[in-house]
Amino acid sequence: MAEHSINGAANLLIGAVPFADSLGMAPSSSHRTGTVKVDSGELGLALDRRSEVPLYAQLAGSLRSQIESGALPVGARLPSTRELAEVLEVHRKTVVQAFQALEAEGWVEAGVGQGTFVRRPGGRPAPDGGTGSAFPWEEVGPSNPTRDEDLREFVLRQAPREDSVRFTGATPDPALFPADEFRGILDEVLRTEGVHALDYGPAAGLLSLREWLAARLSAKGIAATADQVLIVNGSQQGMDLVARTLVEPGGRVLVEEPSYSNGFRLFQSYGAQIDGVGTDEDGLDPEALRSALAKGPAQLLYVMPIFQNPTGAVLAPERIDPILETAAEHQLAILEDHFDADLVYEGEDPEPIRRRDTRGQVILLGTFSKILFPGLRLGWLLLPPPLVERFVQIKQMADLSSGLLVQHAMDLYCRRGLLDRHLERVRATNRSRLAALSAALEREMPEGVTWRSPRGGMTFWMTLPAEIDSLALLQTARRLGVEFSPGSLFFPNGGGARHLRLCYVRETEERIRTGVARLAEAVREEMARGREEPARPFV
Amino acid sequence: MAEHSINGAANLLIGAVPFADSLGMAPSSSHRTGTVKVDSGELGLALDRRSEVPLYAQLAGSLRSQIESGALPVGARLPSTRELAEVLEVHRKTVVQAFQALEAEGWVEAGVGQGTFVRRPGGRPAPDGGTGSAFPWEEVGPSNPTRDEDLREFVLRQAPREDSVRFTGATPDPALFPADEFRGILDEVLRTEGVHALDYGPAAGLLSLREWLAARLSAKGIAATADQVLIVNGSQQGMDLVARTLVEPGGRVLVEEPSYSNGFRLFQSYGAQIDGVGTDEDGLDPEALRSALAKGPAQLLYVMPIFQNPTGAVLAPERIDPILETAAEHQLAILEDHFDADLVYEGEDPEPIRRRDTRGQVILLGTFSKILFPGLRLGWLLLPPPLVERFVQIKQMADLSSGLLVQHAMDLYCRRGLLDRHLERVRATNRSRLAALSAALEREMPEGVTWRSPRGGMTFWMTLPAEIDSLALLQTARRLGVEFSPGSLFFPNGGGARHLRLCYVRETEERIRTGVARLAEAVREEMARGREEPARPFV
Repeated sequence: MAEHSINGAANLLIGAVPFADSLGMAPSSSHRTGTVKVDSGELGLALDRRSEVPLYAQLAGSLRSQIESGALPVGARLPSTRELAEVLEVHRKTVVQAFQALEAEGWVEAGVGQGTFVRRPGGRPAPDGGTGSAFPWEEVGPSNPTRDEDLREFVLRQAPREDSVRFTGATPDPALFPADEFRGILDEVLRTEGVHALDYGPAAGLLSLREWLAARLSAKGIAATADQVLIVNGSQQGMDLVARTLVEPGGRVLVEEPSYSNGFRLFQSYGAQIDGVGTDEDGLDPEALRSALAKGPAQLLYVMPIFQNPTGAVLAPERIDPILETAAEHQLAILEDHFDADLVYEGEDPEPIRRRDTRGQVILLGTFSKILFPGLRLGWLLLPPPLVERFVQIKQMADLSSGLLVQHAMDLYCRRGLLDRHLERVRATNRSRLAALSAALEREMPEGVTWRSPRGGMTFWMTLPAEIDSLALLQTARRLGVEFSPGSLFFPNGGGARHLRLCYVRETEERIRTGVARLAEAVREEMARGREEPARPFV
Repeated sequence: MAEHSINGAANLLIGAVPFADSLGMAPSSSHRTGTVKVDSGELGLALDRRSEVPLYAQLAGSLRSQIESGALPVGARLPSTRELAEVLEVHRKTVVQAFQALEAEGWVEAGVGQGTFVRRPGGRPAPDGGTGSAFPWEEVGPSNPTRDEDLREFVLRQAPREDSVRFTGATPDPALFPADEFRGILDEVLRTEGVHALDYGPAAGLLSLREWLAARLSAKGIAATADQVLIVNGSQQGMDLVARTLVEPGGRVLVEEPSYSNGFRLFQSYGAQIDGVGTDEDGLDPEALRSALAKGPAQLLYVMPIFQNPTGAVLAPERIDPILETAAEHQLAILEDHFDADLVYEGEDPEPIRRRDTRGQVILLGTFSKILFPGLRLGWLLLPPPLVERFVQIKQMADLSSGLLVQHAMDLYCRRGLLDRHLERVRATNRSRLAALSAALEREMPEGVTWRSPRGGMTFWMTLPAEIDSLALLQTARRLGVEFSPGSLFFPNGGGARHLRLCYVRETEERIRTGVARLAEAVREEMARGREEPARPFV
């Protein structure tokens, strides 16, 4: 159990029940099943080697349901990783991973030299060393769909190597932040606006900033007025307000497949059923949208037409009208996310869906976080007029208003033309990094790995040979010192194992070249392993 | 119709149907009922002079349900205010008020010299002058309980006189904001932290600020560790995250009666049923809590034990244990709101409930908005350990994290001791203002008006003689140049007409004296009117 990190106190291990180590296994071709005797009865464990679910995840899930059912009571000791590995005929690392996943979720707890014990999920010591019995928080409130996270999260939570090249996180490079320039702007705001910049602001946001945004959008052919603009705390809050206002529990939300995982998880947290709609190199497929709607009505379509996250695709202009018409026919509201639409490195500005929206069915979402500072938490929604009042009310409920000081600063920064100047610098840097990435991939990647260079944005989508699972590749890549986002993260209903996403805008060209060399090495290792072990499990 | 302000375009008035002006009324003692013939049938209108609901609100409600049912179709012209006033035997102002309320809610629209027309609720012109039919947003999403606002809101939305003394809004005086000091702090943060202060921050908030808060709470006898502190965008977001995590649709939330209206409206917006629990000058009554729980289970108790908003009461220390025990017995979670607990002007610091919480059943909510700057939008939650992970996840869903730059600045401001120094200044100013308010009330108020001076906080609660309704008083007071919050705002289930709340911390002593003189004049006017017209309607 040396692999376990110890967190949590031993006083949680109430009445440890020894776990019986008599295990009777009934082998079959691709399945391993077994029963385990414990005080409270027999436990069944089943693994399916042909499943898309990694073995460690299957084992963790099996143990978790035994804990949930009470078959494995609080305090019970789990068998050792060595024992379980032998009986289930899996690598010991698989068992360790399963245990680590359960520990990260709070189901089990490791004690030094004592083994692994079942604890109350989420349970921790009572505060203040109090003597009263702990309040049963787990019984309060609606069930929280976000708590039952996919085990991929566990892999992603593991700490990377110190010197890792990180192709994760679609966020701008802090090295480019114009911190000094912004310091001058903040100083000026506080000198000129004084205390007024520190008071409560309007719920819809600072009028001057909304006017600037409306004018900027109008200049791009997106008719907008300031009263349709709502300032929010980054695009995440924009999405949250949309979900809260328009998504009903049990309702259906359509998202591109693949799509931004924080987006569809958010909709799931409101009780929505998420269905993926097929995409290709030209973005969302209108035919796939029609098919999805033929299966039943939906409340919302969440779509990123410009430099889609994760694929980097741009929606073909000839697809916009069919999408709008299909949506109108089915009373499907559209949330169009322009998270990095300004980051164009090549060719014309792609066309937004909202520009052709004549019915007022599109909500447009944007942010300053991808071109300027995420730490200000400023984004915006452009709303169809009938929604404005509802959204302002919901924004007030959520947090009254966004911070006024940072809105004043952003407004002055934009009106001085500094945003556009900064955007040019960011575009130039990102363009060079994208070129460095493409060149390195051409040079380093073994045959069978494919990609299509985007012409803007922050994300780069790759496809692996059939025998490689990107989650397994990530384990190898991490050891070699490079991080990326496995494709399965972006598929709401499973799949994506052959894909991975690289974000290249936070690393220098030199580090990009190092990262790609390491990644190519990891791919070669995995390909070699794939040849040795064709029906290869996760580890 | 000169009283109507004109907003909105005439192109909304699709196929105006003339409103028949044949009205047949059936008078009774305290009721006025009448029927109105229109193309689509007959409309019934009923007013009850003995109801607590103001007449204008009854009329607006009656017309609104006719519009909702379709009996009054889109485009129908309403009869003139003069006609309706004659037939219903009410003052014409009552009808004008009803029309204004409907207009503010988007149900009707005034055209210059044309009268008032029914329009689609919330309907406005399609964006971009588009030619397609408008998207039916009103059919998308869950029904929104916040949209059907009480008509009190309408009264409160009316613009006050330019020179009005404003005893509304429990917010600090911007004149006291240490803007220059804070400018220096921000400058220092950006010079020392540089770009790191502008990047994404941790979802739970800046560790250093959480440590400072935990140490400060611990120094006050509230055992706290940094990992139990979650930084949020002001206490409104704190409440929102609590509601989102712990309140289920159809669940029951107990609040003090009276209580902070944005609080219980927020819980209502999550589908909770709100029940008031009786309070007196010693705060929440434990007996009333027991009675409320005897009627059925509840999920959450929302309580402000220290300088309660609106009453200013402090919870008596001997009530804390009974409240905690009753809550534990009924698995009732407690949200304790310390919105202005630091604003002590006299005597010892009042005791928080959380200090005696041995079971971990209390969530503590605090904010910087009431002592420093609301415009930063910074507040915090102190969470029982089993809730931490759930809340961090929900915070991430809501907006990823609070702004990092302002957290760095607040952290430095606090660690330099500047918050405590500023707090002393605010306390001294507020103490003098409270004294000025008390003295002026003693001097000016006619007999029959009563109050109990608080010893801290921002709010001052008054009780009017039985014959005065504070909503009616507000209309008179507004004319005389003074604003306050009518008591009915703070009662979730009706009542409170005899009370009003004064917030005195945003006005100077001289303006406070002027305001009280105007308020006393308004009270005398209303008392005189009350004697003339005992069963007096709202206007």
